[in-house]
Amino acid sequence: MTTKTRETDIAVDPDVPLVRITRDFDAPPEKVFRAHTDPDLVVQWLGPRSLQMRIDHYDCRTGGSYRYLHVRGQDEFGFHGSFHEVRPNKVIVQTFTFESDPDGVALERIVFTDLGDGRTRLTSTSLVDSFAARDAFVASGMESGVREGYERLDEVLSAA
Amino acid sequence: MTTKTRETDIAVDPDVPLVRITRDFDAPPEKVFRAHTDPDLVVQWLGPRSLQMRIDHYDCRTGGSYRYLHVRGQDEFGFHGSFHEVRPNKVIVQTFTFESDPDGVALERIVFTDLGDGRTRLTSTSLVDSFAARDAFVASGMESGVREGYERLDEVLSAA
Repeated sequence: MTTKTRETDIAVDPDVPLVRITRDFDAPPEKVFRAHTDPDLVVQWLGPRSLQMRIDHYDCRTGGSYRYLHVRGQDEFGFHGSFHEVRPNKVIVQTFTFESDPDGVALERIVFTDLGDGRTRLTSTSLVDSFAARDAFVASGMESGVREGYERLDEVLSAA
Repeated sequence: MTTKTRETDIAVDPDVPLVRITRDFDAPPEKVFRAHTDPDLVVQWLGPRSLQMRIDHYDCRTGGSYRYLHVRGQDEFGFHGSFHEVRPNKVIVQTFTFESDPDGVALERIVFTDLGDGRTRLTSTSLVDSFAARDAFVASGMESGVREGYERLDEVLSAA
């Protein structure tokens, strides 16, 4: 199996306060989906390498919810949300709040597209209620965390 | 107690695909909040008079979810979503899907503001990912349903 790193495309929408992230993976939708729903797999890749992920709960089903922490030494960063809809191997729609900004909330949609030949395109959109909030999110350094997380996901998919 | 009907203000945001609904009620926040969270009360007012509401489940707490039907004769319209955050007497953040448009989803925030003198201002925003979807929602006739629902809520608050 190759360990080539694919490009992660991160783009802001010109018309609405939304960020769109696109990334291809060398694994079929079933496998990429499972890496998003099984907390034992999620904990291995979500976020940058410098942070350790600790899951409080991760009940990835329609009507479920989640909370996790990213930990670096003494620092803990909490995140939580609810799963609006989970369609196996197709789509996850969820909410997302970074607890240091407790009034902020994003509506996220993760779409798993079968590219054939055991490959999957992941398209993840994140919608918020103002351009200022969207641009602050992009400026926060999320890009490197997202890219690094997807590189770790490549590794999880290779190993599984 | 007066039965005066207050104005419901429904406004589209000029910059983002969001609808903002504002309405005052002659009841304190605790009471207006309870009418949003207790399914035995919700069923009495949510939606226009011409539809009967049937609740499948309504678990209004952070991380909970809901599903209900609006029924008119043989016609049934389903709605479901998840409760991202429920702060008692302050705010409810939830998702919303009309099941006839299963890929559509709105992120809603309902804020309960204490106006003093036993009055509450309800500010409800609904965010979607395109102006076309937002404008279709407004054009769907939701305005009369919202206004009538809030008139029914006045009655529930007077009776309780």
